Amino acid sequence: MKRIAVMTSGGDSPGMNAAIRAVVRTALEHGVETYGIRQAYAGLMAGDFELLTSVEVSGILQRGGTILQTARNEEFKTPAGQKKGLRRLNEHQIEGLIVIGGNGSLTGALALHKMGIKVIGIPGSIDNDIFGTDMAIGVDSALNIILDSLDRLRDTASSHQRAFVIEVMGRNCGYLALMASILGGAEIVVTPEKPFTMQEIAQALEDAYVRGKSHAIAVLAEGAPYKATELQEFLDKQTNVGFEVRVTILGHIQRGGSPTAFDRLLATRMGVKAVQVLLEGESGKMVGLNGRKMDLIPLEEAVSQLRPISESYFEMARFLSR
Amino acid sequence: MKRIAVMTSGGDSPGMNAAIRAVVRTALEHGVETYGIRQAYAGLMAGDFELLTSVEVSGILQRGGTILQTARNEEFKTPAGQKKGLRRLNEHQIEGLIVIGGNGSLTGALALHKMGIKVIGIPGSIDNDIFGTDMAIGVDSALNIILDSLDRLRDTASSHQRAFVIEVMGRNCGYLALMASILGGAEIVVTPEKPFTMQEIAQALEDAYVRGKSHAIAVLAEGAPYKATELQEFLDKQTNVGFEVRVTILGHIQRGGSPTAFDRLLATRMGVKAVQVLLEGESGKMVGLNGRKMDLIPLEEAVSQLRPISESYFEMARFLSR
Amino acid sequence: MKRIAVMTSGGDSPGMNAAIRAVVRTALEHGVETYGIRQAYAGLMAGDFELLTSVEVSGILQRGGTILQTARNEEFKTPAGQKKGLRRLNEHQIEGLIVIGGNGSLTGALALHKMGIKVIGIPGSIDNDIFGTDMAIGVDSALNIILDSLDRLRDTASSHQRAFVIEVMGRNCGYLALMASILGGAEIVVTPEKPFTMQEIAQALEDAYVRGKSHAIAVLAEGAPYKATELQEFLDKQTNVGFEVRVTILGHIQRGGSPTAFDRLLATRMGVKAVQVLLEGESGKMVGLNGRKMDLIPLEEAVSQLRPISESYFEMARFLSR
Amino acid sequence: MKRIAVMTSGGDSPGMNAAIRAVVRTALEHGVETYGIRQAYAGLMAGDFELLTSVEVSGILQRGGTILQTARNEEFKTPAGQKKGLRRLNEHQIEGLIVIGGNGSLTGALALHKMGIKVIGIPGSIDNDIFGTDMAIGVDSALNIILDSLDRLRDTASSHQRAFVIEVMGRNCGYLALMASILGGAEIVVTPEKPFTMQEIAQALEDAYVRGKSHAIAVLAEGAPYKATELQEFLDKQTNVGFEVRVTILGHIQRGGSPTAFDRLLATRMGVKAVQVLLEGESGKMVGLNGRKMDLIPLEEAVSQLRPISESYFEMARFLSR
Repeated sequence: MKRIAVMTSGGDSPGMNAAIRAVVRTALEHGVETYGIRQAYAGLMAGDFELLTSVEVSGILQRGGTILQTARNEEFKTPAGQKKGLRRLNEHQIEGLIVIGGNGSLTGALALHKMGIKVIGIPGSIDNDIFGTDMAIGVDSALNIILDSLDRLRDTASSHQRAFVIEVMGRNCGYLALMASILGGAEIVVTPEKPFTMQEIAQALEDAYVRGKSHAIAVLAEGAPYKATELQEFLDKQTNVGFEVRVTILGHIQRGGSPTAFDRLLATRMGVKAVQVLLEGESGKMVGLNGRKMDLIPLEEAVSQLRPISESYFEMARFLSR
Repeated sequence: MKRIAVMTSGGDSPGMNAAIRAVVRTALEHGVETYGIRQAYAGLMAGDFELLTSVEVSGILQRGGTILQTARNEEFKTPAGQKKGLRRLNEHQIEGLIVIGGNGSLTGALALHKMGIKVIGIPGSIDNDIFGTDMAIGVDSALNIILDSLDRLRDTASSHQRAFVIEVMGRNCGYLALMASILGGAEIVVTPEKPFTMQEIAQALEDAYVRGKSHAIAVLAEGAPYKATELQEFLDKQTNVGFEVRVTILGHIQRGGSPTAFDRLLATRMGVKAVQVLLEGESGKMVGLNGRKMDLIPLEEAVSQLRPISESYFEMARFLSR
Repeated sequence: MKRIAVMTSGGDSPGMNAAIRAVVRTALEHGVETYGIRQAYAGLMAGDFELLTSVEVSGILQRGGTILQTARNEEFKTPAGQKKGLRRLNEHQIEGLIVIGGNGSLTGALALHKMGIKVIGIPGSIDNDIFGTDMAIGVDSALNIILDSLDRLRDTASSHQRAFVIEVMGRNCGYLALMASILGGAEIVVTPEKPFTMQEIAQALEDAYVRGKSHAIAVLAEGAPYKATELQEFLDKQTNVGFEVRVTILGHIQRGGSPTAFDRLLATRMGVKAVQVLLEGESGKMVGLNGRKMDLIPLEEAVSQLRPISESYFEMARFLSR
Repeated sequence: MKRIAVMTSGGDSPGMNAAIRAVVRTALEHGVETYGIRQAYAGLMAGDFELLTSVEVSGILQRGGTILQTARNEEFKTPAGQKKGLRRLNEHQIEGLIVIGGNGSLTGALALHKMGIKVIGIPGSIDNDIFGTDMAIGVDSALNIILDSLDRLRDTASSHQRAFVIEVMGRNCGYLALMASILGGAEIVVTPEKPFTMQEIAQALEDAYVRGKSHAIAVLAEGAPYKATELQEFLDKQTNVGFEVRVTILGHIQRGGSPTAFDRLLATRMGVKAVQVLLEGESGKMVGLNGRKMDLIPLEEAVSQLRPISESYFEMARFLSR
């Protein structure tokens, strides 16, 4: 191989730039040049390619977002669009492609693989919902941002009899919410996996009040059966709760900011590994963290299911919140 | 004077602990002992006083919240409650009182002053709505937290065609929202003072889109005529906006965290000054930052009106957001 | 078992409080009470024990340092001292002990185990030099602090032709320095494992200058064969370096601050596991992270050697710094 | 005026980019275009000018360093160099120049003014040593970084009997050191203005030890009569100090990172004001913060002396550190 390409796709996550840097410099180490495809599959359609030399990826390691940007694209979801994408890659004499992104992005990568181009996927998603890797790029950074917010809430909470409802990302997967709850000292957590009713939340808050807690925190995943503001309205009507309820919705600030050490390392290792296996001839696989090791799993398998959360963490959340 | 007391009241704000430390150590320098009143006027009613020595205020400078806590109290709002408060102060042989807090808290301080006890107020409120001081304790810390969030939004925004609506504190005063807008690079800001309509917001976002901006940010004060979620619903229906809209509601994380250098200095200077003027026999006054100087203004004046925002900042927000 | 004890020993590291909290609450879940031993082996000698209920460990999760403090003690290193320590544990009817700390601390734990009391160790050390665990408590937090400093250096570096020498912790182990170098984008790193000469550093900086870099960063582990200030003096005399050299010595700020998500999770899992295996009758073992799993390894093995660094990271540092 | 230029010179400081943005957009508001001169006087010599439109200054507000870079230049210090500089400005039809920087940079600005071109200076320097302004751009950001480090030291300090010596910037001016000492809770501070002897430091630490403090912090300005490492060596030989001494040298991390709210506002107001007065025909002046107001003072006056520190802060440092 003489020339590969890399793109970032789907929701951006902190660490994507570190992965791009690792891809480019590892390729250079093997005498291979790397093209960046801007705006993901939209840029692939449009032929928006640029050569990434060592200089272009200098100083991007610590930056949030992605220098290659991401975008939505409907055309690529069609067979005609995919053929056009393949044509663009061939026009630029790209022999291998690395796609960094979530489930949708990796599904696109799989389609290209099936058309014959060599493709390796790298899991990037703050939700940690990608099957086949212990952690995806961006999860650790997002979790640290959430914990920073929870720490601030607790700081002020000590001064009042208040309960805080904080809504965090995770439409299909409660990983961020659950971990934030354990590591941020929340009283209760609502996830798609364990969707407590609003009545159960009220009970948990009442319990915390009765036990003498000066404040209480409930963490809600985006994928909870109700929104934070609905929960607040419900709780305000419950006379037994004892706390005044306040809402925080973190939104996209969870995606932003400089990646943590963990995400930079994960992204770097994944970028290095992706190039190595691509050059060894692998294709249709995703790089995944498996304990200490970087493994490969078939893209087909990775995109066919969501990453489950270990039951033991739900148990931990329960007894550590006492 | 041989003995004074200090309390923190109303919504807590970062820097209150720095003010408490300054009060205690300045008093000690003059051979005066300081009692802390816990939970504000509720603690005053209950006689919840504790002697604060130099050791108790060691290591609190950098902590968010307030070690004396705050609480609501209805009893003190009655004449009988105020008499009881005065009695408690006399029981503890308190000759002077320092009240750190917002408008409501300072109104209580004024009531005590009128009953004959010497009282000095210190403005603490993240909203910067207190008349008679350029800045209140906590404003700078809150503003920095908001800017940190705006920076994160912009980080991720570069990767998408997205508009962000971010709701910040300020029920009666748009200071935080306006400054966040200027210093965080927002496209438009909605305050109680300049309540743009939702249609005007849509127009501003459309303009930003047309000018080629990859993202746009609208900052909303709590006291805007609509909520962030209502604005999102409205914008989602406008076909001309060009951006997908996402919401962040910061809530009480704006109150938390370690105070900034500015707030520590402001709180320290105010604490030092409050003790000095109390020992000089002043009463019924609030310490206020006036340019470089720490001045005194009558509490009566301070609580009678809201601090206005300089028109020039609205103008700056307009032409800097281009 | 009805009663266990926990202590933190050696240099403190962020996350120790999270481990204490997990120990206490997991023990409570099994109906076991936990005593905290203050100031490590010194407190053990002095009988400085206190019952830790759920309330005492509330709100400590996010705090740096350790609520139990640490201290040096020479007496415990003698057989007589160890007997006294055992006696103190018996006086307080402690049936099991959890020791959180580094090599020295775990060696003490091993001595107690040999005298018959049940002991489980938890590795806490920001250097990541403890054999038998992928990561020790505090490493991730320290690394993030270092990266934050490197990011700041690079921020300002872009404005000047400057080289920065930054000295980080690691007397016997270059893990922090090496990882900081890879993840912070340094040009060269000096560790006890790969102690480049000052002449080699000069060469690396010259190379960076010639390649057109606007700045360069060298990371030095504490255990490098020369100090940062010596290196600066040497480089200032080399006419070929091209950069002005500036020094930063991070020192103990690497130990401070709120633990990261990773450290909170690691500490929590280790605390939970330590109690579980202690109650199952294990002793003389250390809890260690092994990929995804929490394993046990004999304390004897853990304290007999230093954790080696994977050669592949040195290789990565080389080709990613181009 | 139809065209102005802006440069950043000397040591960079956080907020310079915010000033550049304010200059460009304020000029645009008045129909004036702005050229950026890269690498300060070196770029002026070389004719390295680029047009800055609204797009170029979009998204730079929150970035550390300066997009225009700074550099040293000896040629401009000569009369021939200054003539060449003037010629370059004329070649580009620049009618007014804004120079953002410290004493040396403003001295250069004064030279250009004397040659007839209209020049306005903006004070940028983290040391706060510039006469004629309450605060220079970057001071507040640097101070917050220092306080963050002091907070971390105290976090870990609680776990040990340790004294920390922390060296901060300030070659001629102890402002940062003094403020850090007051606001970070240090026991003693050494500045060019009050250069305590090493024996006096030892005494202060001994006093802190005897009073029962678990740790102590000494802040040293760069311009102290001895270096941090020398002080450590001295203290290590004093048997009465009671603490183990550890050193932190912050170095250039004090210059880096995103500017604080205060610095963004200060820089923005200064940038706006500088353009306004330039368009009104002013020249040879520096914009300076004077209480609440933005004033002008002659450059001649600004560069002729150092900003003094108010004696009252030294006094505060003394009695608040008890």
